[in-house]
Amino acid sequence: MRQVFDLEADRVPTHWYNVLADLPFEIPAPRSAPAVNGERKTLNPQLPLSMYRPSIGRDRFIEIPEPVRAEYQRWRPTPLYRATRLEKELDTPAHIYFKYEGTSPSGSHKINTALAQAYYYAQSGVKEMITGTGAGQWGTALSMACHPYGMECTVFMVRSSYRQKPYRGTLMRMNGARVIESPSMETEVGRAALRADPDSPGSLGIANAEAIEYANARKEARFSIGSGENHVLLHQTVIGEEALLQMRLAGEFPDVVIGAMGAGSNFAGITFPFYRAAREENAGTRFLAVEPDACPKMTRGRYVMDYTDYSGMTPMVKMYTLGHRFTAYHIHAGGLRYHGAAPIVSAMYDKGLMDATSYSQSRVFECGAAFARAEGLVPAPESAHAVTAAIDEALKAREERTERVILFNLSGHGLLDLSAYETHLAGDTVDVVPTDEQIQASLRPLIESP
Amino acid sequence: MRQVFDLEADRVPTHWYNVLADLPFEIPAPRSAPAVNGERKTLNPQLPLSMYRPSIGRDRFIEIPEPVRAEYQRWRPTPLYRATRLEKELDTPAHIYFKYEGTSPSGSHKINTALAQAYYYAQSGVKEMITGTGAGQWGTALSMACHPYGMECTVFMVRSSYRQKPYRGTLMRMNGARVIESPSMETEVGRAALRADPDSPGSLGIANAEAIEYANARKEARFSIGSGENHVLLHQTVIGEEALLQMRLAGEFPDVVIGAMGAGSNFAGITFPFYRAAREENAGTRFLAVEPDACPKMTRGRYVMDYTDYSGMTPMVKMYTLGHRFTAYHIHAGGLRYHGAAPIVSAMYDKGLMDATSYSQSRVFECGAAFARAEGLVPAPESAHAVTAAIDEALKAREERTERVILFNLSGHGLLDLSAYETHLAGDTVDVVPTDEQIQASLRPLIESP
Repeated sequence: MRQVFDLEADRVPTHWYNVLADLPFEIPAPRSAPAVNGERKTLNPQLPLSMYRPSIGRDRFIEIPEPVRAEYQRWRPTPLYRATRLEKELDTPAHIYFKYEGTSPSGSHKINTALAQAYYYAQSGVKEMITGTGAGQWGTALSMACHPYGMECTVFMVRSSYRQKPYRGTLMRMNGARVIESPSMETEVGRAALRADPDSPGSLGIANAEAIEYANARKEARFSIGSGENHVLLHQTVIGEEALLQMRLAGEFPDVVIGAMGAGSNFAGITFPFYRAAREENAGTRFLAVEPDACPKMTRGRYVMDYTDYSGMTPMVKMYTLGHRFTAYHIHAGGLRYHGAAPIVSAMYDKGLMDATSYSQSRVFECGAAFARAEGLVPAPESAHAVTAAIDEALKAREERTERVILFNLSGHGLLDLSAYETHLAGDTVDVVPTDEQIQASLRPLIESP
Repeated sequence: MRQVFDLEADRVPTHWYNVLADLPFEIPAPRSAPAVNGERKTLNPQLPLSMYRPSIGRDRFIEIPEPVRAEYQRWRPTPLYRATRLEKELDTPAHIYFKYEGTSPSGSHKINTALAQAYYYAQSGVKEMITGTGAGQWGTALSMACHPYGMECTVFMVRSSYRQKPYRGTLMRMNGARVIESPSMETEVGRAALRADPDSPGSLGIANAEAIEYANARKEARFSIGSGENHVLLHQTVIGEEALLQMRLAGEFPDVVIGAMGAGSNFAGITFPFYRAAREENAGTRFLAVEPDACPKMTRGRYVMDYTDYSGMTPMVKMYTLGHRFTAYHIHAGGLRYHGAAPIVSAMYDKGLMDATSYSQSRVFECGAAFARAEGLVPAPESAHAVTAAIDEALKAREERTERVILFNLSGHGLLDLSAYETHLAGDTVDVVPTDEQIQASLRPLIESP
C-alpha cells in the first residue's frame, strides 16, 4: 500500500490562500486601547504594508514572492504520509493521513511565515527583527530566516523554557541570534516583572511585551510575531495547499482535518485550503482544533475583545480567549500556552464552521509515544495534540465500523522535547486543569469593561 | 541558482553496489584467534547467509529486497543540496554539494543498514536483535528497524554517552528497545569491567563485547553491528547511487568526494558508487576520508590484522587500526571513536585508491557551526568532519583560483548533539591528540604477535 505522497519541487504552491475571500461575514475590526490620562499606551507593531494589505483584503490567492518560494523549495513540498502502521495497530477501518512539517530546517511549520516575514521586512528596509518565544520553535525559525537577509535577530525567550530547554537557545545562537532570558533587565516591562518577582518563570506575554518595547526603542528594528495574526495564517496555507494536491494523489478527500491549536497558525495552515475545497465540493468535512486541557481557550473561553499580549499594549481583537493574563501551568506544549485564538479562527468557530476539543497532557503523551513507535517519527508535544484527536477519530471509526478519512498536521518534530517524553515514560506527567473559578476570574476584567 | 536536486520516490535505487566487483585485488581473509589451552574463545556472530553472501561475492549489483526498498521510500531519495550560501560566505569559485541523510526517521544514514539487517534477520527466524552503541545513532536506527518486524531490540549503550546524552536512550525506549548502560551486570564482560573499575566510562568495544556475549546466550537472538562489515558498507551504497543520479541532474561530476570516517560505512556509502563511475569515465576523482585527530586510524595507524572488538572475541581482520584497546578521549563525535577502518576501505586506502586526513575537534565545531549558520542545518559532530574538509577544499580552490566540484556526505543532523555545540560556543572545546608513544604502545601487541 502506498504510504508516501510526494510532490516534485516545482509543485510548491505559487500562491497562499486568503480564506477571507470565502467567508460569508466580516471579521470584527481591532480596537486600540483607550487613552489613560490623555496618554495612549498602545504600541502598534508596524507591519510592512506589502505584507499587511493582502492579509486583510478579499483577494482569494496571494502570490508568494519568488525569493520566498525559492527558500520554500529548499525543503518543500513536505511529505504527506499515510500512517498505515498506526492504522494496523489501532485495527481501524479509518485511513489516517498526516502532513509532516518536521522536515523543515527549523523542525516545524514556523519557518513558513518566518521566511516570508523576513523577506517583507528586509524589503522595507528593516535591519533587525525582535521577537518573543515560548517553547522556542518560533525563535529558532525567525533566527534562521533573518540570516539570508543579513538582518540581526534578537529573541526574548521565556525564562522557564530558556532554562529547561537550553538547546533551543543554542540553536538560535548558532543561527546568529541574540537570545535574552525574559524577564530581562533590558526593558521596563522586564524590570517591572523582576521587581514584582525576582524568580518569575516568565511568560510568552511578558516576552512579547519586552520584544515590543525593545523594538520600539530602536531604529530600523521591528517586532515580529509567529502566530495569530492574519498574515501569519495566510503564510501557513502553503501547508494545506500542498496537502490538497497530495490527497488528490492519494485519491481521497478528508472527512476530518485536524490541527493543534496554539494561536492558530498551524491549524489554519492545514485547514483553510480544505475549507475552500470542501465548500466547492459540498464535502461536509469537519475541521477540528485540538487544545490542551490546561489552556482551553476555545472549549472554555469567551468570544470577546482582548489584548494579544500580557501587558495590554497591543490593539484589542475579538477572539476566543481566557483573558490576556491567564497562565497555563505545567504544560510541556509551550506553543499551545497562548491565551487566545486567532481572530479569523475564532470568528469561524463562532459561526460553527470549525470545531474544537481538548485533551489532558498525559493522554497526549501516551498517543504521541504510540505514534512515534508506530511511524518512527517523534511528534512535538504541540503536534501530539493533533495525533491524539486523529487516534480518537480512528477509534470512533472502528466502533462505528465506518471508513473515515482523517488528515492531521504533524507540525513539528519533538527531538528537542525528549525530556518531556522521558517524563511520560517515567509515569510522571502531570495534568493541571484550570477551574471554572480561575477562568472566570481571568475573564472578568474583559467582560465587565465596556 | 538551483539549490536542491530532488529525485522522485520511484527513483530510489533498486540495487546496492558491491565495490568488490571492481577492485583489481583481493581483500585479505578474516582469521579466527588461535585457541588458548585448547579452547577457542572466538565468538562468531552468525549472519544470515542471504545477507552475508552477496557482501563477499563479486556480483556488481545486489537487488534490494522489495520490503526494504518500500521502507527506504518512506524518506528516500534524500535531498542533494548545493551549498550556495556557504560558497558565497567562503567567496570560493568551488561548487559545494552535499547529500543530506539527516532527513531519515533516525536522523542519520544508519537506518539504511538497520532496515536491511532487520529484514534479513527476521526472514531467517530471529526474534531479538542485540547491539552495542556509542553515540547512539546506531542504537536509535536499529530500535526503529526492529519494530516493523515485531522483533525485540536490546541495546548496550556506552555509559559515558548514556549519561551525557540521555535523550538518545529516551528515543530508543520510545521505539520499544531495552537500553542497558554498559558496562552492565548482565554479562561476564560487563561484570569484569566493573570489577576492574566500578567507575568505568565504558567503551564501544566493551558494549559490543557485552552484546555479543548476551546474544550468544539467547536462542533466536543475534548480535548486529552498524558499521565496518562488508554487508553494512554494501547497504549504505544507496546513498552514493542516489547522489550519482542527482549530480547528473546538477550537470556536474565531483572532483573530490568526502565522508567522515568512523568504521567506514557512511564514507563507503557516498564514495563507492563514485569510485565506479569515476573509473568508467576516467574522471580522476579523489575520495577523502576525514577522521578526528583524537582517533587517527588511517593517518597514523598501521595496516595489520586486528580484532574488531575490545575483548578480542571476534575474528581478526586486516585493517588500518590503532589497536583494539586504543581509547580516544574527550571526543564529541562518538561515532568516529572506533579504533579501526573497514577492511574494504583499508585495502583501497593501502592501494592508494582512497585518501585520508584528520582535523582537531575545535576546528571541526568551528566549521560545523559556520555551516549551520549558512545552510540552516546543524551537522552531527561526526558529519561536521566532512564539512570541515569540504570547507578546506573550497578554500584551496579560492587560493588556486580554480573551479572545483566538491561533494560531501552530511550523514546526520546534530539536534541531539547541541550540548557539544554549546561547549563550542562557550569556547570550551578540548583537543586531545594521542602521542606517538601512546599509539605505538597500543599497536605493539599486534605487531609483535605472529
